[in-house]
Amino acid sequence: MDRFEKGLEILKKLNDENSQELMENLKDIAPDLGRYVVEFPYGDIYARPGLDLKSREIATVAALTAMGNAQPQLKSHINGALNAGCSRGEVVEVIIQMAVYAGFPAAINGINAAKEVFRRIDGKIP
Amino acid sequence: MDRFEKGLEILKKLNDENSQELMENLKDIAPDLGRYVVEFPYGDIYARPGLDLKSREIATVAALTAMGNAQPQLKSHINGALNAGCSRGEVVEVIIQMAVYAGFPAAINGINAAKEVFRRIDGKIP
Amino acid sequence: MDRFEKGLEILKKLNDENSQELMENLKDIAPDLGRYVVEFPYGDIYARPGLDLKSREIATVAALTAMGNAQPQLKSHINGALNAGCSRGEVVEVIIQMAVYAGFPAAINGINAAKEVFRRIDGKIP
Amino acid sequence: MDRFEKGLEILKKLNDENSQELMENLKDIAPDLGRYVVEFPYGDIYARPGLDLKSREIATVAALTAMGNAQPQLKSHINGALNAGCSRGEVVEVIIQMAVYAGFPAAINGINAAKEVFRRIDGKIP
Amino acid sequence: MDRFEKGLEILKKLNDENSQELMENLKDIAPDLGRYVVEFPYGDIYARPGLDLKSREIATVAALTAMGNAQPQLKSHINGALNAGCSRGEVVEVIIQMAVYAGFPAAINGINAAKEVFRRIDGKIP
Amino acid sequence: MDRFEKGLEILKKLNDENSQELMENLKDIAPDLGRYVVEFPYGDIYARPGLDLKSREIATVAALTAMGNAQPQLKSHINGALNAGCSRGEVVEVIIQMAVYAGFPAAINGINAAKEVFRRIDGKIP
Repeated sequence: MDRFEKGLEILKKLNDENSQELMENLKDIAPDLGRYVVEFPYGDIYARPGLDLKSREIATVAALTAMGNAQPQLKSHINGALNAGCSRGEVVEVIIQMAVYAGFPAAINGINAAKEVFRRIDGKIP
Repeated sequence: MDRFEKGLEILKKLNDENSQELMENLKDIAPDLGRYVVEFPYGDIYARPGLDLKSREIATVAALTAMGNAQPQLKSHINGALNAGCSRGEVVEVIIQMAVYAGFPAAINGINAAKEVFRRIDGKIP
Repeated sequence: MDRFEKGLEILKKLNDENSQELMENLKDIAPDLGRYVVEFPYGDIYARPGLDLKSREIATVAALTAMGNAQPQLKSHINGALNAGCSRGEVVEVIIQMAVYAGFPAAINGINAAKEVFRRIDGKIP
Repeated sequence: MDRFEKGLEILKKLNDENSQELMENLKDIAPDLGRYVVEFPYGDIYARPGLDLKSREIATVAALTAMGNAQPQLKSHINGALNAGCSRGEVVEVIIQMAVYAGFPAAINGINAAKEVFRRIDGKIP
Repeated sequence: MDRFEKGLEILKKLNDENSQELMENLKDIAPDLGRYVVEFPYGDIYARPGLDLKSREIATVAALTAMGNAQPQLKSHINGALNAGCSRGEVVEVIIQMAVYAGFPAAINGINAAKEVFRRIDGKIP
Repeated sequence: MDRFEKGLEILKKLNDENSQELMENLKDIAPDLGRYVVEFPYGDIYARPGLDLKSREIATVAALTAMGNAQPQLKSHINGALNAGCSRGEVVEVIIQMAVYAGFPAAINGINAAKEVFRRIDGKIP
């Protein structure tokens, strides 16, 4: 199994719908970037054996909340965290904790992202 | 047990030496900031039951690596992550993963921080 | 008066409407974060005697404009700055000044936030 | 020719429509900021002889993509890069490259900005 | 009095020693950048009548503490804030407050910068 | 020629000495990160045909100056920019321009990085 196949397998598990949208969105302007997303983050990094997927998604949700400039990707990884075995409560804890390291606005905006993801899963928003 | 006592207990467990240095350092210029560090991050947040300390330190190491502008605190939390039960390998995985979300320079500078912490623990640097 | 009560008093003075929305918004997903917002930023920090509220809001508007990744909170604090005694002109000066430290895009986006806040106060947008 | 006139000449060449909107937008709240935008970035910096306009726009698109908190200005400069002689493919390459230095989310959000600019030029969005 | 002269006058008042070092440092590699520093931030912005110098320095100390990636300039402006009429206590308050908006590491690193500036003024470090 | 070989060829051309140090530095703690640096940034991205190496280094110097939290990598790429055909004057122009998008402190700190690189090349510092 090559890097792309390995990556796609993990990506499907974590974020099937979002990743198909991403590929679709990139295909006419930067299809190679879509391929790199599968190959490097997922095929190379998430596929590494030294850390479980749940911890990897905790790390990613923390980083994207703290950086505060990548809301679409944060939502995608909140979803991924749930698919990797985090409870909603654990995702919320990670985000609240970022108030300490990146300030309250980052944490509040992260919670709003989580709220939207949870509501979409619950069918309350389309 | 009040917020300060609860926080101090957790802080001692995660980062005893670093936190004493921090308090010492702040005491003549902003002692209240030293107290807040114990009360809010540790007494309020890390003390919350919904996420284990190991996952909390993974989140913090991820965020500080990604932000890339707080090397002293990153080193402190790499140490804290080890005290919370992360293996060195797991810490390294979290940091490498940040190449995906914050770029290779952030990951490389994070690895250099980890290297320094590991070497200090091993007695190779004072 | 405890930290929460002290914080709420200040928050009501600076940002009554926004803060009620914030609490309402957080209450079903992360109510503790809503409580922390009252207790730590307002009950602990803004309540401190060493700096007047007007100067505190100038500092906050400056920081949020410079960081550029927290527009809802920037708008809230532009409003808070006016309630703390800043004139519109002073708020605009703080934001323009950020062109020097965080670049012109940060300043322009900050001015757009101020424009929206001013227009809402003037009843030109709902 | 003074700084303002020199700046306006370059700005018209790079971003005529966007810059008129910007001036219009700033005129009732911070007209001096509009004047500074013409004078300092364009009249002082872009007017300097040591680097061609195409390279200047490559630098700006790279920086704004990497910073990730100034989407309106990024779109403006993607347009400016095309007017300075970059092909669409070159703009896309600059943005993809930012995955290395600022992470994949920054690159993906940059590509989405480019897609919107290209579609507007092609008359597919108004 | 032209922009350069006006800027130099303000800069001398706020940061005489630091600004001479800066000019000296830039003169053989980018002397125009040294000139722009005098002309735009000081000659254009700090010279504006709508906000007093003390409030301007509060805004700048806040922003540089929050951004956390410009320690030399933060130290310079802590010094400038004192020269503009801030007490040491007020500078410390501004920096502590940044824990709320940019996280505790930013505030702690800002306090360390202030400590160094205060000790230099007191002749405790050269 | 595989990704690693292709990447190493480009990396040697741009930054031979720095990249050997980097690999050496990573080899006992995160050797795979060293391999990824060769494979993804250089083997995948810089190897792409759509943008010349000189423009790629201009983009990277711009981004790292603007981000302001990766001084070692900025110095490395200032060196790379020279090896890719930029004159010293062009590198200085790119960095000065960042004052517009990321503020004067970022530009000044970038110029200091360039000064150090130029002096090292000239044999004035070891």
